[in-house]
Amino acid sequence: MPEIYAVIMAGGRGERFWPLSTPELPKPFIPLLGSSSLLQETVSRIQPMVPLNRVLISIGADHYNVARRQLPQVPSHNFIVEPMGRDTAACIGFCALHIEKRNPEGMMLALPADHYVGDASAYLKTLQLGIENLEGASGVVFGIFPTRPETGYGYILTKKPARGSDAWPVIRFIEKPNASKAKEYLESGDYFWNSGMFLWSNQTLLELFQTHMPETYSGMAKLRPLIGTQGSDTEISRIFGALPRISIDYGIVEKTSGLRLIPAQFAWDDIGNWASLERALSPDASGNTIQGSCTLLESNDCIIYSRDRTIATFGVSNLVIVEAYGKVLVCSKDRAADLKKLVSALEPNEG
Amino acid sequence: MPEIYAVIMAGGRGERFWPLSTPELPKPFIPLLGSSSLLQETVSRIQPMVPLNRVLISIGADHYNVARRQLPQVPSHNFIVEPMGRDTAACIGFCALHIEKRNPEGMMLALPADHYVGDASAYLKTLQLGIENLEGASGVVFGIFPTRPETGYGYILTKKPARGSDAWPVIRFIEKPNASKAKEYLESGDYFWNSGMFLWSNQTLLELFQTHMPETYSGMAKLRPLIGTQGSDTEISRIFGALPRISIDYGIVEKTSGLRLIPAQFAWDDIGNWASLERALSPDASGNTIQGSCTLLESNDCIIYSRDRTIATFGVSNLVIVEAYGKVLVCSKDRAADLKKLVSALEPNEG
Repeated sequence: MPEIYAVIMAGGRGERFWPLSTPELPKPFIPLLGSSSLLQETVSRIQPMVPLNRVLISIGADHYNVARRQLPQVPSHNFIVEPMGRDTAACIGFCALHIEKRNPEGMMLALPADHYVGDASAYLKTLQLGIENLEGASGVVFGIFPTRPETGYGYILTKKPARGSDAWPVIRFIEKPNASKAKEYLESGDYFWNSGMFLWSNQTLLELFQTHMPETYSGMAKLRPLIGTQGSDTEISRIFGALPRISIDYGIVEKTSGLRLIPAQFAWDDIGNWASLERALSPDASGNTIQGSCTLLESNDCIIYSRDRTIATFGVSNLVIVEAYGKVLVCSKDRAADLKKLVSALEPNEG
Repeated sequence: MPEIYAVIMAGGRGERFWPLSTPELPKPFIPLLGSSSLLQETVSRIQPMVPLNRVLISIGADHYNVARRQLPQVPSHNFIVEPMGRDTAACIGFCALHIEKRNPEGMMLALPADHYVGDASAYLKTLQLGIENLEGASGVVFGIFPTRPETGYGYILTKKPARGSDAWPVIRFIEKPNASKAKEYLESGDYFWNSGMFLWSNQTLLELFQTHMPETYSGMAKLRPLIGTQGSDTEISRIFGALPRISIDYGIVEKTSGLRLIPAQFAWDDIGNWASLERALSPDASGNTIQGSCTLLESNDCIIYSRDRTIATFGVSNLVIVEAYGKVLVCSKDRAADLKKLVSALEPNEG
């Protein structure tokens, strides 16, 4: 079987998890669900399947130091540093060039670094099914059975797999729907959430770039001879900076026929904002989800995260309360998804 | 006119304003309403009427250092240190002995150190009216026109003053009423809130102790020769510690006939808990009362006090949010009066 390379995509900004996340320390690098960061958890989770020398960490230049510090076990040449953010198509294309250099026959498993996975062993089984079903497909996407009419995710329309097969043929990708569409998708049974996790033959992926993103591919062709060479940072930066800002979904995945979907056998959440923490952690009997030093009295259905201090609540409900780095956030759970609005309202030195 | 001595009573514990107030730094010593502590504000307010050498600060031994630090302008021998807390009757009796020693003909103006006064000049005018109406009365109490059916204060039943007089004859004192009684008192027009501010001839006050609190008076008689002497701390402590724990209201005021009431001409609040802060400070157009570094978005009717850090709120209402000394409080405004319950629930090292 071809060698599998995991590409762990640890991009992102710091707004949705303010004040714990910051531009210097965005979501993948914060210990949202325990003592390890989401990035560290993602690397640990894949390790039984992919040896560390084939785990590539895709990060922005600003986060190189923190990523190295958090992942001392990952070989230094496995940190694929983007000179600047150019969305996921450029990110994955750049990593595909690195994999091609190491093994032109390799597979790429692209994994976001900042998602919640409920059961690591079921996760590995799901990925294994993906590997087994890649042959003959243009690529494999991992889908999540919808459990609510979520309007914050993209959906994937499939048809039922052939008897004896685990792979659902993909019909098409659907952008984030409105509430009534989301309800319809939930009830239909043929739709999945797009987890953002993909598996490709690296060679096929490069061909898909050539077909569907010729401009990006032409930039990649210029980058190809520079990969792994010394002293080419400036030139890489110049070429990479000229790549179009397009997501892999929009640029490649939605245009690709012959994709197969493997349904996730594990609880999953993209932890899009503070309010989603209660889906990834277990709320207590009063519905409170607590991390850190907290005392709650007559309080219910709150999400509380204390980094350094003690938080005490009395007679409150449905709040997100977070303390970190000299800042305190008190936010209605309903408004947590719009936290960017608050962060924009903060004085520059408070953000 | 007899010399007037102000006794500023700065006792109290730290529970109602947790986490800003603590047993080491109870309510009178914290800057609740601005940059000065309530005690400092009380001393400044009375100064135009009572020179500093006649301003006595009644404090517990634990708070001597902080009181001296906050009031460097007050002569050191004016800090009347109680060896332990024995409620307000013992406090005022002890101060009466000190005044007697300095001037047996003096007047005592007893003032709580931890109240809000809206207009310092109207306050002084009210006190002046008290002084003018003391002659011929057993004492003067200062009353507040009720503005709401408050169940947290004691009330004073009066009758209308004689034509041309400012003093309302006191009929009787009434303990904290239930809601329907409070409503009745509010509507009647003959009831005042008891502000806890009193004016007495010091000589008359000592006689009232002798009449109504003979046990306390007998202790005071033993303390009398020790006042202002060196090396008598242990003995003072022993005698003071044996005084009954009774409030001045219960022990003397409620039993005294011939009291006169002067209505306060100023906005007043006893600032009993965090929720009362919005009566003493001016809420903004959204009903928010803010002290310290705060950013509010889509938030209303909150009381927010930040000592050291930045508090940001989004989509919340009717909350008390306080940050101080490594603790964060988020409390429903409705429950702020019961904050002791939360403080009791905290781990000993969190309180």
